[in-house]
Amino acid sequence: MPSSPDITPAETPESLVARLAQAGRAAQRILARLTDAEKAAGLRAAAEAMRASDAVILAANALDVAAGEARGLSGAMLDRLRLDVGRLAGICDALDQVAALPDPVGEEISRSQRPNGLVLSRVRVPIGLIGIIYESRPNVTADAAALCLRSGNAVLLRGGSEAVHSNRALHAALVEGLKKTGIPADAVQLMPSQDRALVGAMLTAAGLIDMIIPRGGKSLVERVQADARVPVLAHLDGICHTYIHAAADPDMARAIALNAKMRRTGICGAMETLLLDAQFPASPSVVAGLLDAGCELRGDARARALDPRIVPASANDWDCEYLDAVLSVAVVDGLDEALAHIAAHSSSHTEAIVTGDDAAAERFLNEVDSAIVMVNASTQFADGGEFGLGAEIGIATGRLHARGPVALEGLTTYKWQVRGTGQVRP
Amino acid sequence: MPSSPDITPAETPESLVARLAQAGRAAQRILARLTDAEKAAGLRAAAEAMRASDAVILAANALDVAAGEARGLSGAMLDRLRLDVGRLAGICDALDQVAALPDPVGEEISRSQRPNGLVLSRVRVPIGLIGIIYESRPNVTADAAALCLRSGNAVLLRGGSEAVHSNRALHAALVEGLKKTGIPADAVQLMPSQDRALVGAMLTAAGLIDMIIPRGGKSLVERVQADARVPVLAHLDGICHTYIHAAADPDMARAIALNAKMRRTGICGAMETLLLDAQFPASPSVVAGLLDAGCELRGDARARALDPRIVPASANDWDCEYLDAVLSVAVVDGLDEALAHIAAHSSSHTEAIVTGDDAAAERFLNEVDSAIVMVNASTQFADGGEFGLGAEIGIATGRLHARGPVALEGLTTYKWQVRGTGQVRP
Repeated sequence: MPSSPDITPAETPESLVARLAQAGRAAQRILARLTDAEKAAGLRAAAEAMRASDAVILAANALDVAAGEARGLSGAMLDRLRLDVGRLAGICDALDQVAALPDPVGEEISRSQRPNGLVLSRVRVPIGLIGIIYESRPNVTADAAALCLRSGNAVLLRGGSEAVHSNRALHAALVEGLKKTGIPADAVQLMPSQDRALVGAMLTAAGLIDMIIPRGGKSLVERVQADARVPVLAHLDGICHTYIHAAADPDMARAIALNAKMRRTGICGAMETLLLDAQFPASPSVVAGLLDAGCELRGDARARALDPRIVPASANDWDCEYLDAVLSVAVVDGLDEALAHIAAHSSSHTEAIVTGDDAAAERFLNEVDSAIVMVNASTQFADGGEFGLGAEIGIATGRLHARGPVALEGLTTYKWQVRGTGQVRP
Repeated sequence: MPSSPDITPAETPESLVARLAQAGRAAQRILARLTDAEKAAGLRAAAEAMRASDAVILAANALDVAAGEARGLSGAMLDRLRLDVGRLAGICDALDQVAALPDPVGEEISRSQRPNGLVLSRVRVPIGLIGIIYESRPNVTADAAALCLRSGNAVLLRGGSEAVHSNRALHAALVEGLKKTGIPADAVQLMPSQDRALVGAMLTAAGLIDMIIPRGGKSLVERVQADARVPVLAHLDGICHTYIHAAADPDMARAIALNAKMRRTGICGAMETLLLDAQFPASPSVVAGLLDAGCELRGDARARALDPRIVPASANDWDCEYLDAVLSVAVVDGLDEALAHIAAHSSSHTEAIVTGDDAAAERFLNEVDSAIVMVNASTQFADGGEFGLGAEIGIATGRLHARGPVALEGLTTYKWQVRGTGQVRP
């Protein structure tokens, strides 16, 4: 099929990526001129086509799961890989939800008129061709394609080898749906081979791929950041802190600490370090609530004095993203010591303070240099859906272009449009 | 002085850059908490200190110019290097002008309330530590430092060896002024050595330097883009096109074409290719106007038929940034052929159409994928000052973070501030 050609014998990884990228860029120039309604119709048709192919997709996924079991993949890996009727329906529904989101393209960001009469406006436009490099979750194939298409971008997908059959089946159905509405198949391309050299060729395709988004574990993201010559929008660690200030409401502190850690321990917004103010009276009940819920607590000496069940923390516990029912706990003397601990150990993802003191809250919001800073809320709200963005392609922990939850707006850039009446520069 | 320490014998280029970057990051944390008025006062004090040191600065510059003459630098290089009383006064005045610009830090970009009561706002914050790598223009030392400081960023400056005495004198005076108002000297650091290995160490200082901005010729920018591990905000070519549409007003077309090429031929917004519609009747007078003004025209066969003085263009003329009184000229059949030529040869900097046809104008504005697209105006308006940004650190030809003229807003990022009342995620 045009959107995933076989490799011709003569091709190097670089020339294959260049060929696919040129095809994607040509398709993107067509996408860029589609209306909001045309892009939305394409996504709905893709969802329909995936529903119509559910048996084929689930059979392909069963091959991947069987191969994964034979290779001895972990239970967690197999769970990320496995599709069933309910999960596949969710993937299809997500496409309809993205179709219903407002189109960011064409939005006027600013407008001004100069004294010489020139009218300047900044208008949102697609970024161009986006490369997605991901691991075992086949839903990324549909989710990432949908968000890129909705914002007028073409996408080049490179999924994990453990999900190769699932990804090809999902991609084939998705493209069939798009083509029914006249969207070029090359707008969504899936790498035709799992050759690892193709990842390197994508990362160095500067000028051909406009942005790379890695979706997966830390080792993948680190490799992408280290080798990329193409701009990368990446999420690395989520070492999220919650600081319970002296003036925190005890019940609120207990509820937020428990939710921030234990609601789901495996997400990037889960709290990994709890900072308890020495002047906060209810610390014993906060840690007891976490311990009683089955969380392992690793504390410094003063934290361990709060409950005998807290085990000693080692130095690297303060820089560890557990993604599990494990939490590091430290007792700090006041806001400044909390800010210093966060500055030293935060991954700049999400940090929260629980306090009834507005001055302390505002200092925390202003002085903590993280993508997301919260007052009196669970760090588990760090999510594009919870932020009202409708969906997210990821949470960016870098500082440029987009920060925090990235959805459609983060997949656009802008151009300056200048309207004159014959002005020349003096 | 703390802001430009000597290299200790044991230091490698990497450890020196790491030490300076850590000092800069510490200073930036202080800068980030300064008020608008405090930052403005620091810049005005820096301008005053530079005025008070004018004799020292001009003497240092004379050393650089003499060394440049001895090394046989070109006249253009020497002109970029040379300071005099008037130029130095202009550099000092520019600091006062930047001080008078509105502070972008703290601006609320968006605000929303979620159904669960969480209040989300996106607020502008400084990027952090910015590295500037530049060539022979000593004014960049003051201009770049001022824009970075105004937006709350610390800066690490690495100027060209031909301007080393000028840069050190400008930097010393600037820092003296800053210190008078309590701004830490390490907020503006100048590399203590011209060792070229330090440039490589800056480019690979990911996590220490947040963004690198190269200011200089194409070879410098290409080297930075090729080697950087740190995000780069760069301006590469300015191969700007002006398309004279069939429905263009002849007088306007003549005036705009002449100004876009000849007002100043050495700037990135200068027109390098003129596209004349075959149906535009006044093409001979447009080319005659340019030829009579002393511009060399290199044309395709149909363009050469317009005037015997037009010499043949070679294939690479269509991809050439002359930065001189030279222009490539082609005759095209209609808007679509013009758009195709621009898509094939543009550097995505600035393109303009001259037309009285609104439909053609809107198609050009929407379909040309350049940072700046213009209707009925000279491409020489592609400038931060002309765009009302007050100043510019450069014109970005990349697609992410900032596009076109980059000033204070482009030197900021944002954080999400979330204010809750005890919300936990279901």
